[in-house]
Amino acid sequence: MAGSKTGTIFQVTTWGESHGTGLGVTVDGCPAGLSLDASDIQLYLDRRKPGQSRYATPRKEDDAAELLSGVFEGKTTGTPISVAVYNKNQQSKDYSEIASYYRPGHADFTFDEKYGFRDYRGGGRSSGRETVGRVAAGAIAAKLLTQLGVTFTTFTRSIGPVRVSDDRFCAEEIAKNPLCMPDAEAAEAAAAYLDACMADQDSSGGVVECIIHGVPSGIGDPVFDKLDAALAKAVMSIGAVKGFEIGDGFAAAKATGKGNNDPFCRTKDGKPAKMSNHAGGILGGISDGSDIILRAAVKPTPSISAAQQTVRRDGEEIEISIRGRHDPVIVPRAVVVVEAMAAITVADAMLVNMSARLDAVKRFYGSDPLSGGRI
Amino acid sequence: MAGSKTGTIFQVTTWGESHGTGLGVTVDGCPAGLSLDASDIQLYLDRRKPGQSRYATPRKEDDAAELLSGVFEGKTTGTPISVAVYNKNQQSKDYSEIASYYRPGHADFTFDEKYGFRDYRGGGRSSGRETVGRVAAGAIAAKLLTQLGVTFTTFTRSIGPVRVSDDRFCAEEIAKNPLCMPDAEAAEAAAAYLDACMADQDSSGGVVECIIHGVPSGIGDPVFDKLDAALAKAVMSIGAVKGFEIGDGFAAAKATGKGNNDPFCRTKDGKPAKMSNHAGGILGGISDGSDIILRAAVKPTPSISAAQQTVRRDGEEIEISIRGRHDPVIVPRAVVVVEAMAAITVADAMLVNMSARLDAVKRFYGSDPLSGGRI
Amino acid sequence: MAGSKTGTIFQVTTWGESHGTGLGVTVDGCPAGLSLDASDIQLYLDRRKPGQSRYATPRKEDDAAELLSGVFEGKTTGTPISVAVYNKNQQSKDYSEIASYYRPGHADFTFDEKYGFRDYRGGGRSSGRETVGRVAAGAIAAKLLTQLGVTFTTFTRSIGPVRVSDDRFCAEEIAKNPLCMPDAEAAEAAAAYLDACMADQDSSGGVVECIIHGVPSGIGDPVFDKLDAALAKAVMSIGAVKGFEIGDGFAAAKATGKGNNDPFCRTKDGKPAKMSNHAGGILGGISDGSDIILRAAVKPTPSISAAQQTVRRDGEEIEISIRGRHDPVIVPRAVVVVEAMAAITVADAMLVNMSARLDAVKRFYGSDPLSGGRI
Amino acid sequence: MAGSKTGTIFQVTTWGESHGTGLGVTVDGCPAGLSLDASDIQLYLDRRKPGQSRYATPRKEDDAAELLSGVFEGKTTGTPISVAVYNKNQQSKDYSEIASYYRPGHADFTFDEKYGFRDYRGGGRSSGRETVGRVAAGAIAAKLLTQLGVTFTTFTRSIGPVRVSDDRFCAEEIAKNPLCMPDAEAAEAAAAYLDACMADQDSSGGVVECIIHGVPSGIGDPVFDKLDAALAKAVMSIGAVKGFEIGDGFAAAKATGKGNNDPFCRTKDGKPAKMSNHAGGILGGISDGSDIILRAAVKPTPSISAAQQTVRRDGEEIEISIRGRHDPVIVPRAVVVVEAMAAITVADAMLVNMSARLDAVKRFYGSDPLSGGRI
Repeated sequence: MAGSKTGTIFQVTTWGESHGTGLGVTVDGCPAGLSLDASDIQLYLDRRKPGQSRYATPRKEDDAAELLSGVFEGKTTGTPISVAVYNKNQQSKDYSEIASYYRPGHADFTFDEKYGFRDYRGGGRSSGRETVGRVAAGAIAAKLLTQLGVTFTTFTRSIGPVRVSDDRFCAEEIAKNPLCMPDAEAAEAAAAYLDACMADQDSSGGVVECIIHGVPSGIGDPVFDKLDAALAKAVMSIGAVKGFEIGDGFAAAKATGKGNNDPFCRTKDGKPAKMSNHAGGILGGISDGSDIILRAAVKPTPSISAAQQTVRRDGEEIEISIRGRHDPVIVPRAVVVVEAMAAITVADAMLVNMSARLDAVKRFYGSDPLSGGRI
Repeated sequence: MAGSKTGTIFQVTTWGESHGTGLGVTVDGCPAGLSLDASDIQLYLDRRKPGQSRYATPRKEDDAAELLSGVFEGKTTGTPISVAVYNKNQQSKDYSEIASYYRPGHADFTFDEKYGFRDYRGGGRSSGRETVGRVAAGAIAAKLLTQLGVTFTTFTRSIGPVRVSDDRFCAEEIAKNPLCMPDAEAAEAAAAYLDACMADQDSSGGVVECIIHGVPSGIGDPVFDKLDAALAKAVMSIGAVKGFEIGDGFAAAKATGKGNNDPFCRTKDGKPAKMSNHAGGILGGISDGSDIILRAAVKPTPSISAAQQTVRRDGEEIEISIRGRHDPVIVPRAVVVVEAMAAITVADAMLVNMSARLDAVKRFYGSDPLSGGRI
Repeated sequence: MAGSKTGTIFQVTTWGESHGTGLGVTVDGCPAGLSLDASDIQLYLDRRKPGQSRYATPRKEDDAAELLSGVFEGKTTGTPISVAVYNKNQQSKDYSEIASYYRPGHADFTFDEKYGFRDYRGGGRSSGRETVGRVAAGAIAAKLLTQLGVTFTTFTRSIGPVRVSDDRFCAEEIAKNPLCMPDAEAAEAAAAYLDACMADQDSSGGVVECIIHGVPSGIGDPVFDKLDAALAKAVMSIGAVKGFEIGDGFAAAKATGKGNNDPFCRTKDGKPAKMSNHAGGILGGISDGSDIILRAAVKPTPSISAAQQTVRRDGEEIEISIRGRHDPVIVPRAVVVVEAMAAITVADAMLVNMSARLDAVKRFYGSDPLSGGRI
Repeated sequence: MAGSKTGTIFQVTTWGESHGTGLGVTVDGCPAGLSLDASDIQLYLDRRKPGQSRYATPRKEDDAAELLSGVFEGKTTGTPISVAVYNKNQQSKDYSEIASYYRPGHADFTFDEKYGFRDYRGGGRSSGRETVGRVAAGAIAAKLLTQLGVTFTTFTRSIGPVRVSDDRFCAEEIAKNPLCMPDAEAAEAAAAYLDACMADQDSSGGVVECIIHGVPSGIGDPVFDKLDAALAKAVMSIGAVKGFEIGDGFAAAKATGKGNNDPFCRTKDGKPAKMSNHAGGILGGISDGSDIILRAAVKPTPSISAAQQTVRRDGEEIEISIRGRHDPVIVPRAVVVVEAMAAITVADAMLVNMSARLDAVKRFYGSDPLSGGRI
């Protein structure tokens, strides 16, 4: 089938391969009137760009976003926004060898099984570069959400055994170290750990955490389209993600009801509010007005230079050692991808939610909503 | 919006509330020619029925499946299969009190926020009884999958601190204890733990694990509709689930590439196969032919009889103690629900996959597929 | 695949066969807070009931709507509304003969070709009774639309050669004659024509027209989801409909630009408005604030008692004469079905449209929309 | 909302405006292994290019298709195929005047009403150039269908009062005259009629007919997703189309059952077949193996140079005369667009149909379908 499209109202469709002409995305259903230019998207793309640090691939990926449609005189028109990023730095011969065998931990084998063959250049569609389209769409979603009071804090919670504890959390630190950790000390420890991994021709996994601030209560739909379920699909669809949790997540499985339930109190302005947030901002699949907190478990970079056993397409068993430029850890570059997927999901859910109540629908259509609104 | 529909080809739409007339589901897109009667569905519904054990609510829920459409002379016709389960044992006055306040850990508050009011009888649509429709649809999906060689082993991996280790795993044991644990000793320890919880007016969380056997390689779609992403959404959409993982899941975040990659070898019949299964049967979102292994973190039952702080709808802060009959742990009854959601997801993905390759499409349409097939 | 589901936000899924247990529909995505009870649905179902006239089948079809979910204390809750109509008057033996051959003009042959066999009792899923679910959903959509100022005038424009001309149109007349024609004289002429058809063991086609009043401008989406395209699909999906047109429709193909363009003028309140309505209320797929005018061409009842040539399933050529009770014309009973499909389509489009503009989205989320709205 | 996406398995998403950077389409879900290069798409784009005749705009539109993704070593990979056509010949100042008023028969007014403003350059997204994306996708669908034995004959059935009668139909003639009429004499008469229209500063409507050959029986789904309903939506979604019919269409509304029913006979190879084709190849929404015959009513070009009354955005009533280069008739250039939409619809329906029967699904998964298929 397809698989490259997500969203009900805010619809995102991506395309492109690692070593083809380019990658891109079409966002259809973004409300008209949002100020947008290529620099908004570039800002996000730059966050997924390999850094100068030694923990990221030295590949030069100057991904430049081109805005091809859907914006007129600086504002979105309500029609599809097409963004393209042309590939500039492909070195196809680096990858030609992998055409003949299956890299452990990669999708080479399964793409062959599904489609009969594959674009093996840099992993083709299954490459991490596929996330370029996600990030471009996420930039648009995030800009839209900013207008609605929703913002994000996304960071590396852990790398291998090094985890940032809540009591040392410092949001300002995230942008200051190449590992996107909200704790300088942990970042140093993680760096040392990664050095050891690299010396050992190995790689490391880690955890990305995303906190979504400002989502009003009432977002998400019951049963199959719960907001946490939609977030789970969005985040689990990122290449290397193997686990997802909301709020206390797997820790809730070890907890008791007394410890896991969030009591309600009355705020100063007389409204109900939770006194704690074990739930991670979602109850019954619907946002409760607290921060939404989610985490993604990211597996170690599968491309390692250590020797590995595998088979060729013709069945011959061989030993390989993957050369070339590979990040020893995916997590820091996955941070912006997780945020992008969360933004796309929340933006869609908020647009979808507008028709949940008859009184709101009547207010919309009753008070001549379509007049006076000329921008 | 909606939210009660899932699936692309194998489409499932559920309806119903805890204390309304009944609950049900429509399955559209099930292939024609599958032998099906109400007993196939009943078998699954009985698995979610509260047992005789003291760890499940003493409510009598004799859920009887009625097959309303889509089956003719014992076989599915290809048109919508409608299943209804009528509520018989509602005691609405048990629940009338909760109309006025918000139960911690429940969706009372968020439904009010989204819709302006709620059907408060037994939780209405947000009740655990909503899963009746899922389980009925799952029974149909599972029967279909059996015809395609796909089967399930689903069980309680842990309750609170009590976890079944792999070396003590015994599949036959699952059906023998009311906690659905594959280890009699662990089941006893968990029972003791639950006794302590109940004595303390408390409840416990746990982990459900589902192993899907026999899924051929090639199932699932790249990018947003990865098979693991679809499974994540399906399973996270179950009421009390707070976390999801595939294969090594969160443990992969602590692993290194050497330990997490699954090497390939050559099987006796000359085909490639993984030598281990850290990936949990899915690479790049596409099944690799190994068992698919997933786990769901289930939170503790939010309804506990211990005193809890909360607010009334009018804002008054109160202390409540939830009376009535409630399971001290959701996990054992969630086992069949997780399996149902996994079955629905895999069935859909397998039907969708049939058009992935042109050669298969040509074979289908070339060899006069629609003749000779009269059943 | 599926095929029994339509709608993006206002989602409708039908089920059921002519001679099975019953038929029904689930409507998911109806805004919360709409007053609704079974009588609202019954009103519409009664309009599709065979009348007492001699131009409709003498079958007694006392279709009683049962409301199974989604309504609490008289109002929709925002969760799925399930409606069932149980079959009461099936005489399966009337139809058993048709199991063996293909009735001309019916779907017997194509269902066999697609699915390998069919529920032949009364046409099964392809029976006109399938529209029971559509009409029930349409009743809910229409009730919702009434709250938003949208109403319908639907009627028989022509039967065979007898066509109601615009200068004789009288809306009050529609409900007064069994043929639903807005002109008593035409109704008499059509009745005489039908008498002649029946005497000749024949049947007649006709045209249904639906005028949708009060749709605000701006409804419908560009490109593939144009409002007229969505209406076309909805109406063409009704069993016997072979043609669809909007505004001047096929007459526009013979017209010139001067005659077909609708000039704009300024209304008393200073707004732009069309001076004529050749467009039928839709420009570029988006409503322009005028009445939306559509027509459906309905083929003659395929079940006729005259001798017809056909084949048996085993290939033998035979001559058949269809006995039993059949309307000599489908049109009058199709009137409410066309209206139902139009209502479902417009309701969905209006809910979807709410997020078209950023200023409206900001107003919705900015002014604390979710507070104070308790119903 | 969105609106620029169509299809369930064969998913098409278009983007672009008349005078922006370009236009394009992403096709996701095309089976892997189809030979495809840019020239396949160019062939179709060239068919919508304005011709040299005096009945088409003298604008030079050298639309060059660029294939950006989804093809590797000349074959589709199963992942999204992205096609872009960059605009080269925009003369934005030609159109700047229309920013201030509403052209009769165009979508200027309704886009303003929906979105608050519009990209007025050449009609922006509502321009006929929007069909570039449709035609590019249609070229891919048609190439896929050729592999499955499905072909198209699409032509101008009528222009204004000049209609090609069946007894003069000559398929070879279609490509020989600039009006795409299958009758040289009619083409001459139509040309004379268009000359008169142009002399009168006027334009003409007409009818496009599309015959789809080789669709096997069994394609299409019951109820809402009937094949004719899907075709109706696809074709009605083309800008200027105001009516759609299948088979005898509106003529069926005047017919009787005896004349409209297609009797079945037995073919030489013992299979059932219709003896006539009033149904247009579809019964009960499912293809019956005959040619599928559809027609689209196309309105006259709304841009005419004759004086027209309209209003400015600020409400002032004015008289305008649209200058610039405009086709006096849309029909000949719409021919390939109708064919493209039909191809997209049939391709999707055929891929979707593959899972209709359990026996076919079992055959697919039972006989090791994923082995041996390496391309």
